[in-house]
Amino acid sequence: MLKATISADIFKDTVDALSALVTECRLHFSETEVWARAVDTANVAMIILTLKKEAFSQFEATTGEIGLDIAKLKNTYSMMGKASDIRLEHQEGANKIEVTFEGYHYSITLLDSNTIKKDPNAPGIQLPGQVTISGSELYNVIKSASIVSDKIWFAIEPEKKEFVLYAEGDSDNIRRAFSAGEVIASNWEPAKSLFSIDYLKDMGKVMSHAEKVTIDLGVDHPVKFSFEIAGGNGQVEYLLAPRIEAD
Amino acid sequence: MLKATISADIFKDTVDALSALVTECRLHFSETEVWARAVDTANVAMIILTLKKEAFSQFEATTGEIGLDIAKLKNTYSMMGKASDIRLEHQEGANKIEVTFEGYHYSITLLDSNTIKKDPNAPGIQLPGQVTISGSELYNVIKSASIVSDKIWFAIEPEKKEFVLYAEGDSDNIRRAFSAGEVIASNWEPAKSLFSIDYLKDMGKVMSHAEKVTIDLGVDHPVKFSFEIAGGNGQVEYLLAPRIEAD
Amino acid sequence: MLKATISADIFKDTVDALSALVTECRLHFSETEVWARAVDTANVAMIILTLKKEAFSQFEATTGEIGLDIAKLKNTYSMMGKASDIRLEHQEGANKIEVTFEGYHYSITLLDSNTIKKDPNAPGIQLPGQVTISGSELYNVIKSASIVSDKIWFAIEPEKKEFVLYAEGDSDNIRRAFSAGEVIASNWEPAKSLFSIDYLKDMGKVMSHAEKVTIDLGVDHPVKFSFEIAGGNGQVEYLLAPRIEAD
Repeated sequence: MLKATISADIFKDTVDALSALVTECRLHFSETEVWARAVDTANVAMIILTLKKEAFSQFEATTGEIGLDIAKLKNTYSMMGKASDIRLEHQEGANKIEVTFEGYHYSITLLDSNTIKKDPNAPGIQLPGQVTISGSELYNVIKSASIVSDKIWFAIEPEKKEFVLYAEGDSDNIRRAFSAGEVIASNWEPAKSLFSIDYLKDMGKVMSHAEKVTIDLGVDHPVKFSFEIAGGNGQVEYLLAPRIEAD
Repeated sequence: MLKATISADIFKDTVDALSALVTECRLHFSETEVWARAVDTANVAMIILTLKKEAFSQFEATTGEIGLDIAKLKNTYSMMGKASDIRLEHQEGANKIEVTFEGYHYSITLLDSNTIKKDPNAPGIQLPGQVTISGSELYNVIKSASIVSDKIWFAIEPEKKEFVLYAEGDSDNIRRAFSAGEVIASNWEPAKSLFSIDYLKDMGKVMSHAEKVTIDLGVDHPVKFSFEIAGGNGQVEYLLAPRIEAD
Repeated sequence: MLKATISADIFKDTVDALSALVTECRLHFSETEVWARAVDTANVAMIILTLKKEAFSQFEATTGEIGLDIAKLKNTYSMMGKASDIRLEHQEGANKIEVTFEGYHYSITLLDSNTIKKDPNAPGIQLPGQVTISGSELYNVIKSASIVSDKIWFAIEPEKKEFVLYAEGDSDNIRRAFSAGEVIASNWEPAKSLFSIDYLKDMGKVMSHAEKVTIDLGVDHPVKFSFEIAGGNGQVEYLLAPRIEAD
């Protein structure tokens, strides 16, 4: 059972974060929080999202899970005003979620949980390097890199204390170096990995709204992006597997 | 003969109201007004539009009619500024209308009146229920309903004093109830009819600019939307035939 | 060798002026200026563009030329902020130009000058008529004319002291007459020539940003448009060949 009221802004941030990777997911809830963990169809990227009950203006839940069609939740965007409160209600055992706001009553049939891809396990990887930069700057570099290539290097250079994003095309290349002064927080351990820009673009658009994104990196290892939503009462982690250079 | 000057805003509102249903129409004029009455190609929707001479800053006409290509009138939108006055001139017997504004002179060849669909008769139907709501709210519900279905119910529930718009999809549904307090004026007679959202979307976009739209309804009967243009010196009525539920 | 710093605004105006006609060009530079002269693939339109060293906040060059892919320069638009300074560096003999701004380093491989269409000679034509009007008004008329035709007449009528733009479609026509009072400067010599709107649209979009565009005209002769960029430290000329009426 879930009965909760949430602001339109937080609702959209949450749904957008999920829809960057998946079109459907299993939403879990307990007395204290709501969470989802999902991988994309190609098993290349993972999202771990948590919203504490404090992210809601009203929250009442018993342990449970429901299968959500993310696209249907996005449908509500065009209906609702910016300042709205959204009411979500799911009765124990029912196969619907009722979304209510501003005189609207939208009843959405749930997906059968069994037909949704299994929740992934959180991988137990060690990523020694870490930097924190603004989400909008990160997104800007990802978009720029896409001009010359479909892959981008993320690297930490400890000697220079630089965080470097680098894309190499057939004839042209683009490089953006963040100096120690431009980085909010950091752990200057050597790191260098190559990633698909396709995935990063979708994630980057979501992250562009985050004041700070923490990036954990290793050598030829996945990257982990972490950022807050809901004014600190929610947390999103994106994990992305590296590409092989010879691709 | 027609020699008239009209503001760009009223000109656009008038042309937009027509173009929601038809691509060409017969425009009639007399010494005191201009009017058009037309049905769409499928005979499902009708428009009755009247502009009194007071809607024009200058007006001189003798009884007559011309065949207009609505799309050509819309062409002028991108040319004219917001504050323009538009001069319309049609000489008795000529096969053109001259549209003049801001140094531009646009000469449009008329359509042969005989090739345009005959003007319909105004239907003599009785629609007992009536509510008046804001045009923008009406349009918003129509757009929202289109997410789950291509049909929408319009209903008046006298006991509850509610005006209800309701769309039922294969798995999801959307309902918007206007309480007595949300309705500007009303006649709480029982009414319930089903309509095509396709038609309503085009009409709704036009009506979204109207502060008040009066909706006349019956049981499995057409709906009539009435609203003012030209600051009350013009009137538009849209009539739309109902759909059969089993469609 | 070229080492120069230029504001983002001037950089964009310059690149946009070139890209209206060509996708690649030869850029020449000397100790005092940068210039390009190019014709479009159909040999119908020519651009002559000059930027004095004063257009740059820093400028150092030895005589040389490079082959530029215009589209790659436009790629930088989405990366750079409005207020940026752009650093351009080309080393003697190198086959790249380095574009640097806001932490970005974009290395672009040059085109082989030999594969680019030869620079045209400036034609020695006499165009007796001349008017100067605002670039945005000029563009507005070009766009409007495209509604009824793909060709437009440019004419000077000395008796009436009018500059007339006129497009004639199969059934409709559009005419915009600029009176002597609407024209900034003029030389009322008779002129009348027909031009392709396709070309004029692309040029017109660029010229719409110019406060003043000087138009030189003759009878069945090319038209020349001249306007300043870089606050007077740069100059663009567009030449366009006339169309034959019977086309």
